Amino acid sequence: MERYAELRDYLAEVWDLVKVGGLASWDQQTMMPPAGAAVRARQLATISKLVHERVVSDRLGELLEELRPFEESLEYESDEASLIRVTRRDRDKELRVPAELREQQARAGAEAFPVWVEARRTNDFQLFRPYLERNVSLRREYAACFEVDEPYDALLDDFEQGMKTAEVREVFARVREGLVPLVEEASAQEIDDSCLSGHFPVERQREMQQLLLSRYGFGEGTWRLDPVEHPFASSFGTTDIRMTTYYPEHEMRGVFAAMHEGGHAIYERNVDPALERTPLCRGTSLALHESQSRMFENLVGRSIQWWRWAYPELQRLFPDQYEGVELETFHRAINKVQPSLIRIEADEATYSLHIILRFELEQELVAGSVEPADLPAVWNERMKEYLGVDVPDDSQGVLQDVHWSRGTIGYFPTYALGNVISVQIWDKILDDIPDLYEHIERGDLDPLTAWLREKLWRHGRKFTPQETLERVVGGGLDPEPYLRYLNDKLGVLAS
Amino acid sequence: MERYAELRDYLAEVWDLVKVGGLASWDQQTMMPPAGAAVRARQLATISKLVHERVVSDRLGELLEELRPFEESLEYESDEASLIRVTRRDRDKELRVPAELREQQARAGAEAFPVWVEARRTNDFQLFRPYLERNVSLRREYAACFEVDEPYDALLDDFEQGMKTAEVREVFARVREGLVPLVEEASAQEIDDSCLSGHFPVERQREMQQLLLSRYGFGEGTWRLDPVEHPFASSFGTTDIRMTTYYPEHEMRGVFAAMHEGGHAIYERNVDPALERTPLCRGTSLALHESQSRMFENLVGRSIQWWRWAYPELQRLFPDQYEGVELETFHRAINKVQPSLIRIEADEATYSLHIILRFELEQELVAGSVEPADLPAVWNERMKEYLGVDVPDDSQGVLQDVHWSRGTIGYFPTYALGNVISVQIWDKILDDIPDLYEHIERGDLDPLTAWLREKLWRHGRKFTPQETLERVVGGGLDPEPYLRYLNDKLGVLAS
Repeated sequence: MERYAELRDYLAEVWDLVKVGGLASWDQQTMMPPAGAAVRARQLATISKLVHERVVSDRLGELLEELRPFEESLEYESDEASLIRVTRRDRDKELRVPAELREQQARAGAEAFPVWVEARRTNDFQLFRPYLERNVSLRREYAACFEVDEPYDALLDDFEQGMKTAEVREVFARVREGLVPLVEEASAQEIDDSCLSGHFPVERQREMQQLLLSRYGFGEGTWRLDPVEHPFASSFGTTDIRMTTYYPEHEMRGVFAAMHEGGHAIYERNVDPALERTPLCRGTSLALHESQSRMFENLVGRSIQWWRWAYPELQRLFPDQYEGVELETFHRAINKVQPSLIRIEADEATYSLHIILRFELEQELVAGSVEPADLPAVWNERMKEYLGVDVPDDSQGVLQDVHWSRGTIGYFPTYALGNVISVQIWDKILDDIPDLYEHIERGDLDPLTAWLREKLWRHGRKFTPQETLERVVGGGLDPEPYLRYLNDKLGVLAS
Repeated sequence: MERYAELRDYLAEVWDLVKVGGLASWDQQTMMPPAGAAVRARQLATISKLVHERVVSDRLGELLEELRPFEESLEYESDEASLIRVTRRDRDKELRVPAELREQQARAGAEAFPVWVEARRTNDFQLFRPYLERNVSLRREYAACFEVDEPYDALLDDFEQGMKTAEVREVFARVREGLVPLVEEASAQEIDDSCLSGHFPVERQREMQQLLLSRYGFGEGTWRLDPVEHPFASSFGTTDIRMTTYYPEHEMRGVFAAMHEGGHAIYERNVDPALERTPLCRGTSLALHESQSRMFENLVGRSIQWWRWAYPELQRLFPDQYEGVELETFHRAINKVQPSLIRIEADEATYSLHIILRFELEQELVAGSVEPADLPAVWNERMKEYLGVDVPDDSQGVLQDVHWSRGTIGYFPTYALGNVISVQIWDKILDDIPDLYEHIERGDLDPLTAWLREKLWRHGRKFTPQETLERVVGGGLDPEPYLRYLNDKLGVLAS
């Protein structure tokens, strides 16, 4: 028990560093004067280095060894056994990668990023190509540090611990098969979405977003919401939650960004306070996290029931925009399916196709069957095949996303897995709370959040994504609920 | 040279931690949701602990030993010799205090603070007394860790390295002697300052403060200004400057808070970038820092010349307030001398008397000639003697300041030393730039800031306060310029 207390203290310090680093990164994107960037990058690198040193330290290794008998005497589900187990896994993984390779990757990413910004701006893929080549080659080296069935497994594991590429491939094949005809059919419908553009005063948008988020039940004085270019959510403690959003003046899509980030944020907010200041104090994986953001953005946030409550508020705040617009017209508009070029602007149905394309290309890049030089051509070809659109230039094609410039490969699939999982969980909730939609119609999310808190959120990172899914929905990944949901919804909209 | 590079890297990491801790502290006061306080306190404690461990480490001790010959081969003024010298001094000081005592002090301060808040609110000194007793006793223990002429020297040294209590006592005796009759005379004058109260819309105040600070020459994208309850300035790099201020709706004093914090901030902004990420990258001491904030707040900010430029802007932004008010009336109002109870609301002349009283009481507390239980009576008696005011209750008396609740003793004198030094430097500037006021009249601070950058700011913490003063004004502390300045100014206002 004394050894365990020592482990707890040791990890609390590490986690304090991680969270203070998170704050430095949040500040960088929300508050920092632009000229602070160079010094901030050094500060962030120092924090990462100190965290790494502590995770791989011999002291931690010894502690974990000494705690083996204690761990084995405990229930698998206990906080104590979970902390020891997860820490050991994190440490083993961290130890496999030479510090030098980690540094090379960080440096390569830092150098590639501004070149990507410039390449995207000037639509010049060739400028970016050598940097992408270096990033890909370093990721291949990284994957080679692990014993895996295929190299992509090692990369995916960073974001979705224990998930196998083969499993994702199978799920995505089914998703693609279901989505391509669905999207084709849905996008043939004539839906008027002109009510989503116009003039939306920033102050009113802020009020609307605060109002929507107030229904999540964060509790007073535990969160804030700030505008940024690319919204995200983070937390520096379960009672210090930072959401970010945007307020585009000519569109109303800011509310969906807020509801999306709210889903991430409320997960972090509800991790059991007993796990505070430990590496278990966060959502278990990116896909599970994304399942929550997508649930609040789409399953709640694009449902007719939610807007029965929220639409009058929207009309009150934007009377010029919505006074004469029927709820049904609005609801149809926010669910319109339309294949487009840009992932982050995609609708609920086409979004996963953007992801599947990236997932395939990433595997091919890592395996070497596609080289960076060939990427633009392959990209454009597949956009045509999956979404039926012609890519006019690389800025709106292969250069659109930041991820590869940072060397991040293996992250993309988690977005679409989040979509799949969100509906698996949703179906389970509807089984348990048959009158869920009646609550949602009154703007009451309490039964929903109580369910999620009990089944998912409070456990933080105690269980792997697979274990978590098994506990929450009683099975593994299953794309059918997601496809059924989209079919039903788009069918209703069409009728 | 290799060893020196090692030292540089080592200290860069320490300084990154210090600055990230500074950011966590800034965020705590400006942005953090209130419920984040408990976890934030732990994070700050972890950062402090990691910094302490690094400063006292054997590794650093060895490096400094190995670098002795290198240091001796260099010019005293060089960046390299200064970094080695100052680091050695910091480390020696840090080593003298047992880690346990540091922890006790931190804990005692953290526990006393909320009690002080409550005691001040309910005007109950007895509630606070035991906590104050503990803080004082721990500070006595702290002082005993050092070999000093008198215990207060050890405390003063934390803020004003190398300064002796005896010297400050002598300077303050002269200041008090000069100020008491001056204040008595000046406060007999009838000055109408009603134009300083009224209605000042927050947005307009923000605009006015930004406008004033824009004359300091920070450079675009290097700073920000945020509202807080108690304004302060900090920096997380020479190009990442954070000022804070307030916008009280019924008074115009916010501009002076902004100009004051601007003085601190512009000092940090102009430290030589070659010192970035080292412990030399900040102002050399609190008194020197305060000399800059006071200079910009008072010598610039309450001069008639500055307002010849700024007053029309003030009139434009607050027409209801200032349309019919003459510049001279306004200038007289912002310089009105009036003894009062609260230090932070005091005018330029009485302010130092508030400080001298605290300086005396602190020495007596540490020496044991006054016990915490006797403080209220002694406080009230001396307020009558120095400022001629009757203290109606302890909330407006001995309980008004936060410092002692945090265990901070030895800090107060630096405020009045700042006043003294600010005029010593100002006189020197006027010698070198005879037409300084003509520039100020045009809102042009460039000659002033260029002088200060060259003579003071760029050196950061390379030199001790005494060395710095010697370099800038060619001598030691001298209260005469300050007294002369106040005499002249108040004389002119009376005529």
